[in-house]
Amino acid sequence: MHFTSESGSDGVSERRFVVDGVPGLLWQPDGSALGGRPLVLLGHGGGQDKSGPRERARRCAVRYGWAAVALDAPGHGERARTAQDERFATEIGELLAAGRPISAWVARHTAALAERAVPEWRAVLDALEGLAAGEGLGPVGYWGLSLGTAIGIPLAAVEPRVVAAVFGLAGHAALVEPAGRVAVPVEFVLQWDDELQLREAALALYGALGSREKSLHANPGGHLAVPDFELASAERFLARYLPRATG
Amino acid sequence: MHFTSESGSDGVSERRFVVDGVPGLLWQPDGSALGGRPLVLLGHGGGQDKSGPRERARRCAVRYGWAAVALDAPGHGERARTAQDERFATEIGELLAAGRPISAWVARHTAALAERAVPEWRAVLDALEGLAAGEGLGPVGYWGLSLGTAIGIPLAAVEPRVVAAVFGLAGHAALVEPAGRVAVPVEFVLQWDDELQLREAALALYGALGSREKSLHANPGGHLAVPDFELASAERFLARYLPRATG
Repeated sequence: MHFTSESGSDGVSERRFVVDGVPGLLWQPDGSALGGRPLVLLGHGGGQDKSGPRERARRCAVRYGWAAVALDAPGHGERARTAQDERFATEIGELLAAGRPISAWVARHTAALAERAVPEWRAVLDALEGLAAGEGLGPVGYWGLSLGTAIGIPLAAVEPRVVAAVFGLAGHAALVEPAGRVAVPVEFVLQWDDELQLREAALALYGALGSREKSLHANPGGHLAVPDFELASAERFLARYLPRATG
Repeated sequence: MHFTSESGSDGVSERRFVVDGVPGLLWQPDGSALGGRPLVLLGHGGGQDKSGPRERARRCAVRYGWAAVALDAPGHGERARTAQDERFATEIGELLAAGRPISAWVARHTAALAERAVPEWRAVLDALEGLAAGEGLGPVGYWGLSLGTAIGIPLAAVEPRVVAAVFGLAGHAALVEPAGRVAVPVEFVLQWDDELQLREAALALYGALGSREKSLHANPGGHLAVPDFELASAERFLARYLPRATG
């Protein structure tokens, strides 16, 4: 794990790192140790990058003492675009220009991204575990909506270190199968008037989650109109499984 | 308004009253004034009575300083059963004995109960306003699931003193029309495997609410398996509109 820069403000340090060519950001309370500290994996939305979840990361560090990490998803942020990424970018431009629905495109594209992103997240967890040598990592939560969920569900299906997850704004059919293998508690955010996801598909994805404890939180409005109180709710949900950390 | 008994423990007084022949319970912090104090109307479930919401009422008083009131719904608790109540009781016994679905019965019965209960709640609000003379009542919330929602939605549709409501575990078609006239913020509780309500009907009722702000909270399990954390969530929701009271 290679840290390339460090900055901090308001008592939270932010460090840029690269693992196997994937750039990420790691936040934690200034001067705190990683060992034993709860960690939140923050998945960003489509078209955003690792800095998108910065405010969520800083709130987690300030209010709960947790560490948080975000990665550039494949084809996003500083990462080179593959021929596939370029093809997807061209396609969505054409669909939008033609005023045609993009949900099938979103499903196909995000499934391809998730296949690349899941091993990247696991490699970063391994690297962070190395940094926390001896004590090891504390409990790990995952929090990502939309593209963050398209990646997070297949990740939680295979990664036993994730103990709780906030998902939502997604309902691709390709996610139903891995969702059935998710067993950890989930809070699932749904926007009732989401213009990018069919409501029925999102409800079906919530229903497909294998978790014994899973809460659906739906609110009116479009994809980008998740109310602020759902951020606080997601934090409180994670805090049921990730203890407050000090020191 | 006629108070017939008073008891208290842990700093919360409980007074039994009768308004126009309807018995109820009023809770408030010991020795507190009603004037200007937020008030929560607590609707009980089918087959229960005014004492069913006692724990919720006591929590509201202890944690938030709110007053709370519950009534025996028509045909429930201490109230005489009408010929209609008796007929419904006979019918549901026959349906259950025959192993037949009771959702149509629930819809018909609760609509009839609501027609009687709404003016009773309004009369009690008038009486409490009289007690709070001068200062008047503080903001009023409503919190009732199942039968409490079958009564609460038509109440909130016509009663401007209600500023926020917790509903759920209901989805009768007869509620869709009054739901469209509800304009206040709502938290709506749904049990994904509710054996008494069709999931689709409950989702449709949430969708029909006219409120600009409305949150659906769904969890796995049957009608009686609402998780404890939804109680705390409902309190936090109401606390966004009902200020904490002291004195």
